[in-house]
Amino acid sequence: MARVLTPQAEDFPRWYQDVLAKAQLAENGPVRGTMVIRPWAFGIWELVQRGLDDRIKASGARNAYFPLLIPESYLRREADHIEGFSPELAVVTVGGGKELAEPAVVRPTSETIINASLARWISSYRDLPFKINQWANVVRWELRPRLLLRTSEFLWQEGHTAHASCEEAHSFALEILEDTYAATMERDLAIPVWRGRKTDREKFAGAVVSWSCEGLMRDGKALQMGTSHELGQNFANAFDIAYTDERGTRQRPWQTSWGASTRLLGAVIMVHGDDQGLRLPPRVAPVQVVVLVAREGEGVFEQASRLVADLTRAGVRAELDPHTDVSVGRRIVEWELRGVPVRVELGPRDIASGQVPVALRAEAVKTTHALDGLAQAMPAILETQQDELLRQARAFRDRLTSRVTTIGEAIEQARVGAARVPWATLGLDGERRLLEAGISVRCLVREDGALVDDPEAGGVDAIVARAY
Amino acid sequence: MARVLTPQAEDFPRWYQDVLAKAQLAENGPVRGTMVIRPWAFGIWELVQRGLDDRIKASGARNAYFPLLIPESYLRREADHIEGFSPELAVVTVGGGKELAEPAVVRPTSETIINASLARWISSYRDLPFKINQWANVVRWELRPRLLLRTSEFLWQEGHTAHASCEEAHSFALEILEDTYAATMERDLAIPVWRGRKTDREKFAGAVVSWSCEGLMRDGKALQMGTSHELGQNFANAFDIAYTDERGTRQRPWQTSWGASTRLLGAVIMVHGDDQGLRLPPRVAPVQVVVLVAREGEGVFEQASRLVADLTRAGVRAELDPHTDVSVGRRIVEWELRGVPVRVELGPRDIASGQVPVALRAEAVKTTHALDGLAQAMPAILETQQDELLRQARAFRDRLTSRVTTIGEAIEQARVGAARVPWATLGLDGERRLLEAGISVRCLVREDGALVDDPEAGGVDAIVARAY
Ligand SMILES: [Zn+2]
Ligand SMILES: [Zn+2]
Repeated sequence: MARVLTPQAEDFPRWYQDVLAKAQLAENGPVRGTMVIRPWAFGIWELVQRGLDDRIKASGARNAYFPLLIPESYLRREADHIEGFSPELAVVTVGGGKELAEPAVVRPTSETIINASLARWISSYRDLPFKINQWANVVRWELRPRLLLRTSEFLWQEGHTAHASCEEAHSFALEILEDTYAATMERDLAIPVWRGRKTDREKFAGAVVSWSCEGLMRDGKALQMGTSHELGQNFANAFDIAYTDERGTRQRPWQTSWGASTRLLGAVIMVHGDDQGLRLPPRVAPVQVVVLVAREGEGVFEQASRLVADLTRAGVRAELDPHTDVSVGRRIVEWELRGVPVRVELGPRDIASGQVPVALRAEAVKTTHALDGLAQAMPAILETQQDELLRQARAFRDRLTSRVTTIGEAIEQARVGAARVPWATLGLDGERRLLEAGISVRCLVREDGALVDDPEAGGVDAIVARAY
Repeated sequence: MARVLTPQAEDFPRWYQDVLAKAQLAENGPVRGTMVIRPWAFGIWELVQRGLDDRIKASGARNAYFPLLIPESYLRREADHIEGFSPELAVVTVGGGKELAEPAVVRPTSETIINASLARWISSYRDLPFKINQWANVVRWELRPRLLLRTSEFLWQEGHTAHASCEEAHSFALEILEDTYAATMERDLAIPVWRGRKTDREKFAGAVVSWSCEGLMRDGKALQMGTSHELGQNFANAFDIAYTDERGTRQRPWQTSWGASTRLLGAVIMVHGDDQGLRLPPRVAPVQVVVLVAREGEGVFEQASRLVADLTRAGVRAELDPHTDVSVGRRIVEWELRGVPVRVELGPRDIASGQVPVALRAEAVKTTHALDGLAQAMPAILETQQDELLRQARAFRDRLTSRVTTIGEAIEQARVGAARVPWATLGLDGERRLLEAGISVRCLVREDGALVDDPEAGGVDAIVARAY
């Protein structure tokens, strides 16, 4: 078969660039580090958004929208926050032809401006818990940009909540981590993720505790795919948010914030993609089934159109490819590149026999299926392909993850994948030594699978890897 | 009844401010002219978006995303475009702690950056027509901001297309005007709109022809609710977009662009709102039916919950109000303020009799309906309320619009509403005279209802009014 992309094993970053270009996913914008998300990738993003948005709404949060431009002084109100973000800020100094009295920062995240509103909106215990979310673009100036993974502008959702107690905020941060983020990643994106606690060094600027979902890409590097932060009362203090409790006492609420971004598209590409291109999990595939008119002939086009209509009626996102002026081979390469999960090929002989070729992208196999009843059978076929991608990604991650007991072994293992190493062995010094070797602690997890309440307790592992 | 808002007849701008604040719709952001869109208003916007997005996709356009930041030099490539937008630009001069070599403009609209991509993506007649859309925030510095109507930042969609011929671009611009914009406004928002051609003075900076949908607000002022532009080959020339036609000749495509924004929320408020608050068309009401536990009693809460569940199953967006600790009167005021189309009140006696009060916001009447079968009947009831709001808005617009024959009469009529005046009577001089009186030509329409092909032909009317 003709080589479409640089093979992953030869040069993974080059493969990634190739697939972004050839599957028409994303490209660089003219201002350094910005990107254009092309329709095929954006179609995937719309489906990722739908899954996230449904789960966010199920958590009780409602969508709203806050301004892009934030007075520079707002960011300074929380000391860790400004320290963390100031190297990455884009600043508007001119508006309407005039120098602004106070420069406005293009939001790198919206804790400050949202909490300025919450200070007005929250006054009584009846207003709590308060849960809000926005879908927005954010800008963090990036010197070493990588499309969809680390760009000067990206799209995301950011949720912000206020609660009456620390424990409730803690529970909610973990609920989002599991029921919104891990659920979307595993069920919709078919990507297994570690849920864990960030080390103090890796936590969000302004947070007390940060939690994250981390995935392992095909090149053995980790990707932080979503984070959920316990903010304590840091922003409530900085923005003077207070409520009157049942006994009439003035109290500060406890807060969370949490975000996931277009980076998830990078994860889908790098976890499932192969040397032929993308492999899309059916739940986030803009086209789930392509019906190719492979060869022209009596009634083929009509039969193919009918199949597409039947699939659509069965709730499947189906598309017809009637372009017989282009060779079948070339079109197949194109549909595999774009990662469409199922390809049905129709020609005169298939129609005559009533048995049609059905190619499954996830399994890289071509089966045959009775044309009669194919549309009705398709939702179940798509489910198997969804499961298959998750199964493969799990097996891959297991293969590339090892438990080790020394820092040296961890560095060795991180050349090919992720290492689990006891946090007690590592500690702050070990974390620093790893960083010097280009390796970071992705998150802390417990051996028994529970979430880490106290990093210094026994039974805590660090998951360490090179990372995007 | 207690006065909740400043009455419209007393002070319409004050009424508008009141309803924005009390129905918790929107408020000012800290940077001049920016706004916060609160959850209730954003919930309406999500439904408006859904209707627009479905229709945009039906037109063949696909969604994508282009960068927020545009090199300043891009805007200068089209002379009219930069002239039109330069007074409104917000400019980023610092990024990542450093002065930028070339300042970046925060997009006021995206013709320039999108056409820079199209120049790479379009090369053959097979690539045409090319149709793309993005949902995005844009910034146009505003010295006299008005929430949801004219703000320094707003949310919108902007579509951009390229076609092989002028006639096809022309047809598509009009297709969007009618099938996407007018259809959303009339069918979803229940707002009748004039579709017309902008005068040269009012057209988009960079367009050859601009078309718009114009609505008439309750204070007799017009609001431009969506525009569709024929760009000719202006941007194709500026960004060197070319394709090879069937005969192998290099050609410039003909383009369109079109946009509608969060301003539509302002229109919903100002067309349907009354002295009690919003009145939401059911299709864009986040809650279509509220079921109030009016008075506690044996089985009332259970019956109300069951009704909400039945309504939800019937495809109705329903919410339970169980807050009997707050008086019924106060809660009714609140739900009317928020504009929920239908309110069902349940108390022990209603349940005993099996007949329950059903209040219809659009008609301001309270009827009764058998509890049995109410959920199943609700979709039809909501349809009647949707139709009723459109009927009222049409009657109102007709009442406030007069055909006049002189400029003096047009100025007189524009004190209370809109005037239709022959464009031959008005002309460029008349347009200038009206502007001096604070009145603009909203659009040109034909007496026979057709769209204006040639403004200088006979039978063309100008619709003139004060405008937002
Ligand atoms: Zn806690
Ligand atoms: Zn034309």
